[in-house]
Amino acid sequence: MRMAIRVAVAGASGYAGGELLRLLLGHPEVEIGALTAGGNAGTPLGAHQPHLAPLADRTLVETSAEQLAGHDVVFLALPHGHSAEIAARLGQDVLVVDCGADYRLADAAAWQRWYGGEHAGTWPYGLPELPGRREELRGARRIAVPGCYPTVTSIALAPALAAGLIAPEVVVVAASGTSGAGKSLKPNLLGSEVMGSVSTYSVGGAHRHTPEMTQNLSAVAGRPVSVSFTPLLVPMSRGILATCSAPVADGVDAARVREVYAKYCADEPFVHLLPEGSWPATSSTLGANTVHLQVTVDADAGRLVVVGAEDNLTKGTAGGAVQCMNIALDLPETTGLPTVGVAP
Amino acid sequence: MRMAIRVAVAGASGYAGGELLRLLLGHPEVEIGALTAGGNAGTPLGAHQPHLAPLADRTLVETSAEQLAGHDVVFLALPHGHSAEIAARLGQDVLVVDCGADYRLADAAAWQRWYGGEHAGTWPYGLPELPGRREELRGARRIAVPGCYPTVTSIALAPALAAGLIAPEVVVVAASGTSGAGKSLKPNLLGSEVMGSVSTYSVGGAHRHTPEMTQNLSAVAGRPVSVSFTPLLVPMSRGILATCSAPVADGVDAARVREVYAKYCADEPFVHLLPEGSWPATSSTLGANTVHLQVTVDADAGRLVVVGAEDNLTKGTAGGAVQCMNIALDLPETTGLPTVGVAP
Amino acid sequence: MRMAIRVAVAGASGYAGGELLRLLLGHPEVEIGALTAGGNAGTPLGAHQPHLAPLADRTLVETSAEQLAGHDVVFLALPHGHSAEIAARLGQDVLVVDCGADYRLADAAAWQRWYGGEHAGTWPYGLPELPGRREELRGARRIAVPGCYPTVTSIALAPALAAGLIAPEVVVVAASGTSGAGKSLKPNLLGSEVMGSVSTYSVGGAHRHTPEMTQNLSAVAGRPVSVSFTPLLVPMSRGILATCSAPVADGVDAARVREVYAKYCADEPFVHLLPEGSWPATSSTLGANTVHLQVTVDADAGRLVVVGAEDNLTKGTAGGAVQCMNIALDLPETTGLPTVGVAP
Amino acid sequence: MRMAIRVAVAGASGYAGGELLRLLLGHPEVEIGALTAGGNAGTPLGAHQPHLAPLADRTLVETSAEQLAGHDVVFLALPHGHSAEIAARLGQDVLVVDCGADYRLADAAAWQRWYGGEHAGTWPYGLPELPGRREELRGARRIAVPGCYPTVTSIALAPALAAGLIAPEVVVVAASGTSGAGKSLKPNLLGSEVMGSVSTYSVGGAHRHTPEMTQNLSAVAGRPVSVSFTPLLVPMSRGILATCSAPVADGVDAARVREVYAKYCADEPFVHLLPEGSWPATSSTLGANTVHLQVTVDADAGRLVVVGAEDNLTKGTAGGAVQCMNIALDLPETTGLPTVGVAP
Repeated sequence: MRMAIRVAVAGASGYAGGELLRLLLGHPEVEIGALTAGGNAGTPLGAHQPHLAPLADRTLVETSAEQLAGHDVVFLALPHGHSAEIAARLGQDVLVVDCGADYRLADAAAWQRWYGGEHAGTWPYGLPELPGRREELRGARRIAVPGCYPTVTSIALAPALAAGLIAPEVVVVAASGTSGAGKSLKPNLLGSEVMGSVSTYSVGGAHRHTPEMTQNLSAVAGRPVSVSFTPLLVPMSRGILATCSAPVADGVDAARVREVYAKYCADEPFVHLLPEGSWPATSSTLGANTVHLQVTVDADAGRLVVVGAEDNLTKGTAGGAVQCMNIALDLPETTGLPTVGVAP
Repeated sequence: MRMAIRVAVAGASGYAGGELLRLLLGHPEVEIGALTAGGNAGTPLGAHQPHLAPLADRTLVETSAEQLAGHDVVFLALPHGHSAEIAARLGQDVLVVDCGADYRLADAAAWQRWYGGEHAGTWPYGLPELPGRREELRGARRIAVPGCYPTVTSIALAPALAAGLIAPEVVVVAASGTSGAGKSLKPNLLGSEVMGSVSTYSVGGAHRHTPEMTQNLSAVAGRPVSVSFTPLLVPMSRGILATCSAPVADGVDAARVREVYAKYCADEPFVHLLPEGSWPATSSTLGANTVHLQVTVDADAGRLVVVGAEDNLTKGTAGGAVQCMNIALDLPETTGLPTVGVAP
Repeated sequence: MRMAIRVAVAGASGYAGGELLRLLLGHPEVEIGALTAGGNAGTPLGAHQPHLAPLADRTLVETSAEQLAGHDVVFLALPHGHSAEIAARLGQDVLVVDCGADYRLADAAAWQRWYGGEHAGTWPYGLPELPGRREELRGARRIAVPGCYPTVTSIALAPALAAGLIAPEVVVVAASGTSGAGKSLKPNLLGSEVMGSVSTYSVGGAHRHTPEMTQNLSAVAGRPVSVSFTPLLVPMSRGILATCSAPVADGVDAARVREVYAKYCADEPFVHLLPEGSWPATSSTLGANTVHLQVTVDADAGRLVVVGAEDNLTKGTAGGAVQCMNIALDLPETTGLPTVGVAP
Repeated sequence: MRMAIRVAVAGASGYAGGELLRLLLGHPEVEIGALTAGGNAGTPLGAHQPHLAPLADRTLVETSAEQLAGHDVVFLALPHGHSAEIAARLGQDVLVVDCGADYRLADAAAWQRWYGGEHAGTWPYGLPELPGRREELRGARRIAVPGCYPTVTSIALAPALAAGLIAPEVVVVAASGTSGAGKSLKPNLLGSEVMGSVSTYSVGGAHRHTPEMTQNLSAVAGRPVSVSFTPLLVPMSRGILATCSAPVADGVDAARVREVYAKYCADEPFVHLLPEGSWPATSSTLGANTVHLQVTVDADAGRLVVVGAEDNLTKGTAGGAVQCMNIALDLPETTGLPTVGVAP
């Protein structure tokens, strides 16, 4: 009989932490250990995550290496800038899965520009759907989980770039639910402001996920890819729908595009190419670790258009993190991860 | 090694059918067989249930006893009035779980008044949380799953009535998401009408679930209980929050009430009494087979108030149906059923 | 030619203040003067109320009697406890309309219990739809605008109590949009928490609007009325739907009830009794100063049921305040007030 | 004293018709005459438009030239293909304002491709914010109101194209509320499907509003403009947020762009350029006849980005129609049209 894998979650009172716990409660191989928080330390988890009834009475402890020590896996769901110190004090045999931004960007200058402060370094990048990444994750003990926007947009565009179907100038407009902004007490995230309204923010290349997309897509394309990225805030809690387009290469038609994507999706357990004529809806991925894709060519405008849907908290954060854990620990990749969304 | 239980779902293109399939895909003991529909027969399931990607290519067949024969379990998710004929033609060893209203009411006159047409009869009532019901379900081969409103309101009020805490005159106002109305093409169910608005319908005792509540609560109380029931339509897809109140009996205080409910919930795997000071939110039960309860006494108004939350499609319909199947087939009652909601 | 009425709004960066300004911008007789705020003083209004484009460049000044002096009308949209000091320093010829709670309750002991601190006193109560109130408002220079819940529930139940149609024991369950809670940075008001969920709060007689309802309804009934009040928080920004019921008096049937309500509504410019068979939806009152009502008798349960809808920010706060100003200043009561909701 | 302008609305039971009536009820110069419908003829307006309480008892009559004759202005809010026959039978002195697509496209081949059937012709195009269009509308007696998407995207991009700030290859992703699809009984428009989900449709150049945008933008640019257009369906009833981008011309920076847009907006009564740092939200335009704009340059990606917000039913349809009527009849252009949205 296999021993349970003992996991800790740092940042358990936030949205990413809560989603990690929802998934881990349904994971057959793990046992949930320490749950840590910042300002909420000392209070019961149930006060912050009322849906996690089985863990309601667990007391949150202070986020520290001491509290996180003694686990097989430590998930960090913290604001950026907090992972390095903790990770340095956890053994190299402990699997540390960072849901924050600290170890995503390889370029120190990019880190400085977008986040400021010292560049912590780079860990194996937790997006197994990108070429070569799954292999890097096997046996890894440090993993940087991608941002929610880069997850879906990289998966959506990688096949086209890898196959040379498009020019390296992509335009991405991604509509996101509000949970992507975390449990932040800002006026523009209040229900009264969000409901019945669509807005935008960080327009014109100002969003921190832009360099991460550029990094991923350039690596796949083998040359620099420019990314024009606009995020939209839409009135729902979870989900991202990314509309991605780029000038289509000469001679590439819809059939060729479909062939490329079908081949790509056939090997990926969590990425589905929808039947022709059907376009993604985020509700189909709600609470599931999946990405739904559809592709077409706009012959008039000369552009390939790919639309991808995901749940930003599941595949976009916590589900992706658990998937990486499964790969790193040599468990079947889909263990404990829902593949069917809660719809309608 | 146990043989897989072979299940069929009649009405697979509707909301209840879709939720049954979502749950059954995650049930470790079942194998999904025939999927039937009415007008949608001949089309692929994926055209109607895009979230059920693993079953997208399955073709819906005509709802008939022939198509449903040869399974261990048949779930009926049909409009009322269609179950009797099908059930009569399925063997007595086949477990038939009816999510419709046909076999819920014991009183033929009540059936006539509320539904019209011939009264089909009564099957064991699929609400194991009511006194004596769980026992009736063990080994049963015909089960009538309750309506979504009666599920949560009966669970919310049964402990108080059983313990004589309240007078038998209850007032229930229950706010429901729109999926409770099914995939009906009516103007008042369009997103444009529903979003940003709360409305009501079937006010003044006109809702068909009223006699079912009266039946359940009177049985628990051992005397007639009058039910004033008002359903609200609120802008969300899933979830019911039921506010239930009644005049509190002399000498009953909040502590006594809490004691009764705590005892009740301790024995129920899917019913949670929230910590004091915390009130139910439907999101905590989204996609889960749970009911969350909280209770208090309004000393000024002299009323006990119980608030209950559920997901109308899960515990309120399909999850309750799977729970009943588990009991009837002597599986652990919680097999394959989520107990943590998808929140936020 | 009439001189413009010069108005100031204290608390202009909040939701009530914003709605006052939206209405005042459309009011043909007023000129908008000082706009004050607390912590937001010194910033432009546009930073807080982006929809009020015509006033975007106005600078918010500190809330103080000095800044508010020199206007014909001063609207106070402040947290409770702040009105007395300001009002004392404004001339008796200035019309002060308080949207807060300070001057609503006549009973000093009730004030102490529900709000704490010293009881400021009582001003003419700004609900002209209650018997005798409209007359008190004519020429008044101090007005206390009712709470949003008491507005719709008092209008819904007053006709029945005045005509002796019901016993004085009412049960009210009112579903409200989140704007009723103001622009408060609390986790449970975040969009991520609110959307897709219904919850409740202040259950069991704990809501501060309860004594105001009791006061209003007892005055109408001429005897003590007990009120069991439960507020629900539903996923929309604006609107309240109140379901009100009470034991119906002997011999009172639906026809008699309808007659009483039709007579009442015929005299009220903002209260509409819907056609038989049609039930209120809050969207029909969105942004309008109206209350929509419907009534029935539940013969089985022996209860009268009245459902009322309003926009909590319009008729429930700012619209009611402007209506009172119109009455006090002897303008036509409907001046500048929308009577058609923005739907769908 | 001016005589009231007598107006009729064809298609009064739909969303565009309802919005026309909401605005016309607040228009000081008009008197509402015949209200016509197709299948709903013979029923009271209140059964379809419960928010239009002042007109609840009006009976809908059959849509026909006979019923529409005898008015000064006739608004047509009908499915495409129905306007020509009616307009031909109304006098040339009657102002006919068509909210449908029939007379929008100048190119008969484009009409054939996108709508099929015979091309009806072209009427003066009701978007006064485009160069030269306002002049064409003065005194006009036939007007074609633009589609909801072309309204906001044409206004958003016209200044940049007119000033040569961008290359003629634009990418538009526009998120729309569901009311843009009309009161259509389709499963994907049900509240249960729409809420909590973002989806897309008519991707890859397949949306009928694409040729209208191409026509408008090419006219402004003085050369062919290619438009890649993707519409998103988001969970709200009203509002469009359009994200528009194109390669920026050499030497054009953010300051130059802002200068161009500020100059443009200064002359337009309904188009607002937001303060720097503030981005549009659709709620700020809810129920108002306004378009809110913001612009920036993404230097990394080399693109100009313009974001525009409108209410699809107001400025995008009915409000634009009333604005055109005002111009055609030489009334002040803003008469009866709200300029402040209902927010939050």
